[in-house]
Amino acid sequence: MASGPSNPSGEDSLIARYFKPLAKDPGAFNLDDDAAALRAGGDDIVVTTDAIVEGVHYLPGDPPATLARKALRVNLSDLAAKGAVPAGFVLTLALRGADDAWLKPFAQALGEDAAQFGCPLLGGDTVSTPGPVMISVTAFGRVPQGKMIHRRGARAGDRVVVTGTIGDAALGLNLLKAGPVASVLANDDAAREMLTGRYRVPQPRNALAKAVRDYASAAMDVSDGLAGDLAKLCAASAVSAVIDVQSIPLSSPAAALVARNVVGIEALISGGDDYEILCAIPGDRMAAFVQEAKRTGVAVTAIGGIIAGSAPPSFLDPQGRELALKRLSYSHF
Amino acid sequence: MASGPSNPSGEDSLIARYFKPLAKDPGAFNLDDDAAALRAGGDDIVVTTDAIVEGVHYLPGDPPATLARKALRVNLSDLAAKGAVPAGFVLTLALRGADDAWLKPFAQALGEDAAQFGCPLLGGDTVSTPGPVMISVTAFGRVPQGKMIHRRGARAGDRVVVTGTIGDAALGLNLLKAGPVASVLANDDAAREMLTGRYRVPQPRNALAKAVRDYASAAMDVSDGLAGDLAKLCAASAVSAVIDVQSIPLSSPAAALVARNVVGIEALISGGDDYEILCAIPGDRMAAFVQEAKRTGVAVTAIGGIIAGSAPPSFLDPQGRELALKRLSYSHF
Repeated sequence: MASGPSNPSGEDSLIARYFKPLAKDPGAFNLDDDAAALRAGGDDIVVTTDAIVEGVHYLPGDPPATLARKALRVNLSDLAAKGAVPAGFVLTLALRGADDAWLKPFAQALGEDAAQFGCPLLGGDTVSTPGPVMISVTAFGRVPQGKMIHRRGARAGDRVVVTGTIGDAALGLNLLKAGPVASVLANDDAAREMLTGRYRVPQPRNALAKAVRDYASAAMDVSDGLAGDLAKLCAASAVSAVIDVQSIPLSSPAAALVARNVVGIEALISGGDDYEILCAIPGDRMAAFVQEAKRTGVAVTAIGGIIAGSAPPSFLDPQGRELALKRLSYSHF
Repeated sequence: MASGPSNPSGEDSLIARYFKPLAKDPGAFNLDDDAAALRAGGDDIVVTTDAIVEGVHYLPGDPPATLARKALRVNLSDLAAKGAVPAGFVLTLALRGADDAWLKPFAQALGEDAAQFGCPLLGGDTVSTPGPVMISVTAFGRVPQGKMIHRRGARAGDRVVVTGTIGDAALGLNLLKAGPVASVLANDDAAREMLTGRYRVPQPRNALAKAVRDYASAAMDVSDGLAGDLAKLCAASAVSAVIDVQSIPLSSPAAALVARNVVGIEALISGGDDYEILCAIPGDRMAAFVQEAKRTGVAVTAIGGIIAGSAPPSFLDPQGRELALKRLSYSHF
């Protein structure tokens, strides 16, 4: 993402108008160069990349402001789960045309989030496409050398912990697609707004990154569904887990929908887009972790424990019966 | 780009089959994690990102092996021009489906190039799209702290230097689109192959990166056309330039096509996809730079000089007349 004042093409003027104001980091060189420079200062640079495609990851009518936030935040969520402090990001934007009515709120919201999370725009590429809009973000974070938290590392006896609440975004998506949830909540504006908000604008738990780095034996963010993501963490760590379904944190609207049998708990734990942190905390560090989480204002809930073995994690209901999960998570192909 | 053996979804198995074999860098964590870690060791990390879209940046029938190489090499070219040594890359791939006949040669060629240029795959994201294929690469390089070479920095009196030859890729594209070049070269297989090869598989000048860092006052890669890119370098440096058109290095087929009036020189210097390095070298460092370039085997040619002023660069023919350029370079919007 670079432009030159002597030859202001459409692409260059688009970048100058919308994205230069966001590129305040000295390493972005005002987007006037071919590359950015990230000062690492001896730290490791954690790199994560996630793309969202119109019609696949979001609905064509979704507001550009929430798309900008989601595209950045899904990456911030990965950084948080790895224990990294945001350092910046690059943006690849494939657009059908330069539509000011779309670009203006997109860039403004992106700038607000970049400022809020301390993750400045460093560069990017803007290309035209005849197809769906695609927003691809590669984000960078800093960790002290060798201190990135991995999926592997969980050990038998560790507690399994999640942040926030699980399943709201899946319900929000159901709502937006006019599924059963939409009719049940037709008269509950507050619940509808909360659930769609959870789908459209994730709340990445970057405030908890340092606590994750200091206390977790393994961590990842929940993006494809709690059940599937826990299975991945367990596989990477060569362990299994037992989860107490009743202890999985649900928002009030989600809990009410489950209680009324509008949705089953399995839909919530295999639905995607939570962007909460899932981590394993050794028993003897649990109290200190909870204390630290409280200080940062991020809700954390122990939902079960890591056990030895290679079986997929079990999800047990209050009667001790294992939940049958038809699918664990979302797959693109 | 991460997968879990306990829940091999289509996306996970695609990654396991095609991309894990490429992720040999320890910081890629075998693509089993949510992020990669780039050990900077006190260096700055140079970041560049470029995306290519089917039907926009390449032709739908282009071989997947050459697409893979081009997607990586256009980024390697940026790193070279910034004086950076490749450190790795992440890949975002938007596909309509998991087509083995496409993915296998794509991944194999990508792996070969990653090995050849010492730029390992660190991670990525694979998403489905109903639209055109999009291949987005974000590449990383290392430079000693503060030593990235910029577009700004050229000064009056510096020599303007380009690597390789200019305009071949534009001719190759004309050929592939069955333009006038195709009929003229209908019986010249070698020329057709060379020119289409230059369009499809750029030859990034990474071997010259250290020389650029040691000797250039400013540099960028020529990706959107020499004329437009030089205008950008001059604008960033607040200088102008005078170029001797006759000294612009052309391949034999390109020179023959110009001599026969099949194409004008202006088409070659405003055509894109050269992926050569354009740099400004102070006069007193020129001999040492040329010496060093010779050692690396990269051809370099002085094509003019930087002058004071803010006018766009002039391109002068052998009679000293200024070339009229209808357009300087390609723009997406």
